[in-house]
Amino acid sequence: MMVKKVDHIGIAVRSIEKALPFYIETLNLTLEGIEEVSSQHVRVAFIKVGDTKIELLEPTSEESSVAKFIDKRGEGLHHVALAVNNIEERLEELKNKGIALIDEKPRVGAAQANIAFLHPKSTSGVLYEFCEKQRGEKSD
Amino acid sequence: MMVKKVDHIGIAVRSIEKALPFYIETLNLTLEGIEEVSSQHVRVAFIKVGDTKIELLEPTSEESSVAKFIDKRGEGLHHVALAVNNIEERLEELKNKGIALIDEKPRVGAAQANIAFLHPKSTSGVLYEFCEKQRGEKSD
Repeated sequence: MMVKKVDHIGIAVRSIEKALPFYIETLNLTLEGIEEVSSQHVRVAFIKVGDTKIELLEPTSEESSVAKFIDKRGEGLHHVALAVNNIEERLEELKNKGIALIDEKPRVGAAQANIAFLHPKSTSGVLYEFCEKQRGEKSD
Repeated sequence: MMVKKVDHIGIAVRSIEKALPFYIETLNLTLEGIEEVSSQHVRVAFIKVGDTKIELLEPTSEESSVAKFIDKRGEGLHHVALAVNNIEERLEELKNKGIALIDEKPRVGAAQANIAFLHPKSTSGVLYEFCEKQRGEKSD
């Protein structure tokens, strides 16, 4: 199977601190952690929802693609990450099927996962991420 | 627990027929079904991904809020539906906590579920739906 599950839903926010109470206090969901991904100029908060997660993305610099997204479209739904195994092979398969990729090779994202983005022009406007946990790590 | 899981991720598309091959042929996901929700002026296709679903929403009339969304923002991520029990009580709780609601009372959506939308102004720009399967029906 190419895709195992929805790993997370990425949401662009101006401020994690302002967005978080809705998830934690109102919906009673659990915050798994907050970390900075300096290569992407974002801070991210992961919130557990059943078998998947919500990822709040807060830009830490105007260079961040998340900052540009918010400037253009406002806060809101940003991407959907699909959990896969053998990400390099999966990307090769997509390429062979004519799907446009933003990242032809995986790079390291939040939680040390290997990630790659597909181009929305091949997916009816949705920014999809492929995401593979480091081998040997618990795939939750 | 207020929220059980992400029931589905709603995606606005101009044409289910054009959007579907990416999910079915490229990602090898399973189409669960296509139905028309005439009250909302949409056709919807449900695609299974692990424990959740992707819902493709195609407007059947210019009156549809999905048609207006596409005119304004293009195709792409539209809403996230959270599975809850006792939806009326949950909406009452949200109201008491000061969350703005689009639907104060649930109405019937796709797959005969009781659904209600929260207002994005209370949720950092995300359109969330609460969704409860008809009692007695299998909650998958």
